[in-house]
Amino acid sequence: MKNNLSELAKLIRYYSLVSTTAAGSGHPTSSMSATDVMTGLMFGDVLKFDLENPEYINNDRLIFSKGHASPLFYSLYAAAGKVSEEELLSLRKFGSLLEGHPTMRFPYTEVPTGSLGQGLSVGVGMALNARLDELSYRTYVLLGDSEMAEGSVWEAMALASHYKLNNLAAILDCNRLGQSRETMVGHHTAIYQKRAESFGWKAIVIDGHNFDEITEAYKLAGEQTDKPTMIIAKTLKGKGVSFLEDKPGKHGTALSKDELEKALEELGEVDYTIKGEVSKFTGEIPNNKSLISPSASRGGQITNKIQNTSIQFTNYDPVKPVATRKAYGNALVNIFPAYPNMVVLDGETSNSTFAETFAKAHPHKYIESFIAEQNMVGMALGLSRRGKIPFVSTFAAFFSRAFDQIRMSQYAHANIKFVGSHAGVSIGEDGSSQMALEDLAMFRTLLNGVVLYPSDPVSAEKLIAEAAAHNGNVYIRTTRKEAAVLYSQDEKFPIGGSKTLKSSENDQVTVISAGVTLHEALAAYEELQKEGINIRVIDLYSIKPIDVESLVKAANETKAIITVEDHFAEGGIGDAVRAVLSVHGKQYTVNSLAVTKEPRSGTPSELLAYEEIDKNAIIKTVRQVVSYKL
Amino acid sequence: MKNNLSELAKLIRYYSLVSTTAAGSGHPTSSMSATDVMTGLMFGDVLKFDLENPEYINNDRLIFSKGHASPLFYSLYAAAGKVSEEELLSLRKFGSLLEGHPTMRFPYTEVPTGSLGQGLSVGVGMALNARLDELSYRTYVLLGDSEMAEGSVWEAMALASHYKLNNLAAILDCNRLGQSRETMVGHHTAIYQKRAESFGWKAIVIDGHNFDEITEAYKLAGEQTDKPTMIIAKTLKGKGVSFLEDKPGKHGTALSKDELEKALEELGEVDYTIKGEVSKFTGEIPNNKSLISPSASRGGQITNKIQNTSIQFTNYDPVKPVATRKAYGNALVNIFPAYPNMVVLDGETSNSTFAETFAKAHPHKYIESFIAEQNMVGMALGLSRRGKIPFVSTFAAFFSRAFDQIRMSQYAHANIKFVGSHAGVSIGEDGSSQMALEDLAMFRTLLNGVVLYPSDPVSAEKLIAEAAAHNGNVYIRTTRKEAAVLYSQDEKFPIGGSKTLKSSENDQVTVISAGVTLHEALAAYEELQKEGINIRVIDLYSIKPIDVESLVKAANETKAIITVEDHFAEGGIGDAVRAVLSVHGKQYTVNSLAVTKEPRSGTPSELLAYEEIDKNAIIKTVRQVVSYKL
Repeated sequence: MKNNLSELAKLIRYYSLVSTTAAGSGHPTSSMSATDVMTGLMFGDVLKFDLENPEYINNDRLIFSKGHASPLFYSLYAAAGKVSEEELLSLRKFGSLLEGHPTMRFPYTEVPTGSLGQGLSVGVGMALNARLDELSYRTYVLLGDSEMAEGSVWEAMALASHYKLNNLAAILDCNRLGQSRETMVGHHTAIYQKRAESFGWKAIVIDGHNFDEITEAYKLAGEQTDKPTMIIAKTLKGKGVSFLEDKPGKHGTALSKDELEKALEELGEVDYTIKGEVSKFTGEIPNNKSLISPSASRGGQITNKIQNTSIQFTNYDPVKPVATRKAYGNALVNIFPAYPNMVVLDGETSNSTFAETFAKAHPHKYIESFIAEQNMVGMALGLSRRGKIPFVSTFAAFFSRAFDQIRMSQYAHANIKFVGSHAGVSIGEDGSSQMALEDLAMFRTLLNGVVLYPSDPVSAEKLIAEAAAHNGNVYIRTTRKEAAVLYSQDEKFPIGGSKTLKSSENDQVTVISAGVTLHEALAAYEELQKEGINIRVIDLYSIKPIDVESLVKAANETKAIITVEDHFAEGGIGDAVRAVLSVHGKQYTVNSLAVTKEPRSGTPSELLAYEEIDKNAIIKTVRQVVSYKL
Repeated sequence: MKNNLSELAKLIRYYSLVSTTAAGSGHPTSSMSATDVMTGLMFGDVLKFDLENPEYINNDRLIFSKGHASPLFYSLYAAAGKVSEEELLSLRKFGSLLEGHPTMRFPYTEVPTGSLGQGLSVGVGMALNARLDELSYRTYVLLGDSEMAEGSVWEAMALASHYKLNNLAAILDCNRLGQSRETMVGHHTAIYQKRAESFGWKAIVIDGHNFDEITEAYKLAGEQTDKPTMIIAKTLKGKGVSFLEDKPGKHGTALSKDELEKALEELGEVDYTIKGEVSKFTGEIPNNKSLISPSASRGGQITNKIQNTSIQFTNYDPVKPVATRKAYGNALVNIFPAYPNMVVLDGETSNSTFAETFAKAHPHKYIESFIAEQNMVGMALGLSRRGKIPFVSTFAAFFSRAFDQIRMSQYAHANIKFVGSHAGVSIGEDGSSQMALEDLAMFRTLLNGVVLYPSDPVSAEKLIAEAAAHNGNVYIRTTRKEAAVLYSQDEKFPIGGSKTLKSSENDQVTVISAGVTLHEALAAYEELQKEGINIRVIDLYSIKPIDVESLVKAANETKAIITVEDHFAEGGIGDAVRAVLSVHGKQYTVNSLAVTKEPRSGTPSELLAYEEIDKNAIIKTVRQVVSYKL
């Protein structure tokens, strides 16, 4: 049975209008401009999707990068019979699965969108996944024209053509009007075409309201052999209702009841009974592919470790220091047999982050992402949603480039392992631009995010394995400098734990740290011992979740807490420790040593001293604290 | 006197090699590929720059977006006689002005770079500034080819041509090799040319080591009337030394002493005595332009308020609630007579952030930045360095898109006023993608950053004025919802202060808040009064710096502190308050109410209740705290 695209498009426009009017808010005009291209995609025998099994691994994927066109998104599935009119009218209401911008609560959302310019990166990730898995599914991404100003889109454009992703198609809803004014390019579709072609894409300009042209464009896209396709659809915002069509000032505003009445009159008679059929993939897929993707994103109990394989960790010589960043590279190779669904991405820093150790061993599982961190994180999100465990690395400082993408990934319930190297002033001579001093603060804000900070190579490898086993986003901070081995091979490092490295019955003060400053604390311990001052030293390798019990114990048993971190004063270890202790009502003091002066070039030792987070600063602070009258 | 470009280039290569070898680290090969194009720029009578007056307002500007080519940057000025060989040999040493990547300590640095892809945005800002001030200076930006993968570059490309910035030229050092491998485009300069042209630029491909072509290219760039120019220079990494030229694996590595000896042999005889002359601007500039730009970036005592004008604030009717975002728009117009050097930028949200109020009043001082937040912040940095006070607005959530640019702006000692609207879950139906829940955490990390959070329209306007008067970066968080007027017109709001709105001699508990939750706290106060429970309520409008005195007083005089914020639990008001109180050693408890559940669509009231940060949650917590045995 062949769908009647015009009738379906009319029904979908009806749905977009009534749902937003019922909500009293939303983006009907943005939905109406893209209705025909999306109707043609979903009901024109283009998209192959099993509506009963949204996570089926060989479904085509459809991402609304233009997330505010959510009324259209929901209406498409309503036209397919999967969303009732009642549900549609619950749009934007508290408790509804149909939120203002698509979230994971709605069963067909690939990833939450609404922060523009991010969807194409996710699409690139999903298209790459198809390649990795030798699956034939295609990935479609709907973009608005306003968001074409976002640089992240052009990162994705470059990567997609570089990787010859002919299984990826972008549909640009070129309706000319942004939120407050016309876009820079307006309706000059030839400009988008030139730009897309210069970035290595096949670019097709069409009348976005002509179903013949729409259908032909999807066909052409499907015929590409070595490049992705951008369908540039010239459209009218508010198409279908004369007083909305191409009119400025109508963005993000639902129609009043009166306006709705007029609009529906114009739309004409809607056949509410029609349902669009969505084609399904009916071919063969390679053996050994599980039918449902092992994605934890919809809350299923997923075991990441999909083989009963014990991990062979590197046997570090206890007397040879090894940087935790180096241990990261080793760990990736060591855990791989237990996690064959892992992939590794890096932003052209793999010889610094040591992602290259893995890349050399398993080049087909390594995705060079070049200097484009936003897109790298977006690709990781797409891969995560399709069941991969992505390990994503760059200098920790450069994850700040992708904070918006990282932020959105939390709402996708993603399973990304972010690994940031070159933390702190202790990177030395390269200076401030390369120093991550706010990364702990950034990653601590993620809902249910895990933040780990290993201080030696043994714990680093163990924590990488813990991260792989964990369901959810994890951030691991690694260090440039070599680190002395602190732990024996059989030590375990559960997420949420800590290690008390030094303690006695006469500890005056507790020093809590991680990374390079933990080693400073241990050196301080030795010197203070000679003066007869005992300090407890805690390795806070898990900053979030945090070992409440050990912290409270230390606060109760010692006079004061000192935290030390190669990080700014805000948002890191100091704040994390205080958040635990302040609710327990006991008298305590937390002195925090952190980076408070503008950093600069120098040797690591000079900089740690300059920032007063080194052994001497710790000793000085301990002495001060011990001498307080408490 | 005409400079001998070849001889100067040789001297500069010599300088790059010896300085990095002395440092034991650095990027000589990256410096050597760009040496000829930069020599041609600086010594070929192209750049017009008064070396004695780096901040002269009509100097041409030169930005090294490719910040790791710092050895070249310093060497250029050495060849001009402004840096001694001794200073060059101090490269990367602790205390040197010549850091690993350029910082403000070096007198000729326009902005610190080193996080790639940011320099062109700064250049766009500086070029726009020339337009605003009707000055004839040109802006030149050196880019590497690896960083062309950064989306931020393409944001800048689009904006620059949109604004027809013919006074801007980018030089692309296309040396093919990135850090760990070849770039995506390699030496296919025609691809960059196509891309640049599709983005509306004049694009010239040259042999980057041929001085005739270099000179001709700069001439052509200077002749453009309506578009910026990109000079795409095909170069060899490590040019000048055969065992380095175009060789992979040589990135970011200084030569050993032996290698240096061989390299210098190859370079041949260097004339150490030559000095390059740099041309200066010799024409007229319009009257009333002060000769030194009022930029605070080099630490001078600058008064932002450059006219003795008192500000006429809006007289808000005490019984009519007005959203703080609306007050922001009013404030911009009200302070403008006192700050004629302010400019306003917004990322295509001006009808939501109310930047449009200013845009309508002073369209020539408003810069529409479209949906490209990274570039918007970069432009603001460029404008700030040239003496403007940029007010930059978008949804607070979308500032996370520009965190790397914001991070770098702190090292520029910039004077940018970031204003983020639509904070928190209380934006309502739009849902999580639009909700800023980590912005306070982000901005709190900035060195010397100011973080303000007004709760009513009166204080909002006053704080905007305080922000304008303040020297340095400021972040102001505004709210979507209408807010009841809390203050009288004559109230003052110094940065670092707070307001105790409710207090008595029998306050049991202190509730500290700002924004929408402050109003919830005030409502809780009323109800608790009826139960005979007195609470103190503090408006923490200045989160950083923070009112230590009032907080300590409250902690001493009441049983416990409760913080409430429409923000995630990490990094915001709770952490800020705890950081103050924990060093004072008194017994206290801080209970923090914050957003801990994944947010969703709903009405503001429903969401505040759902997240347990509303009046009822505050009342419940107060009751719990009061009933503790303390």
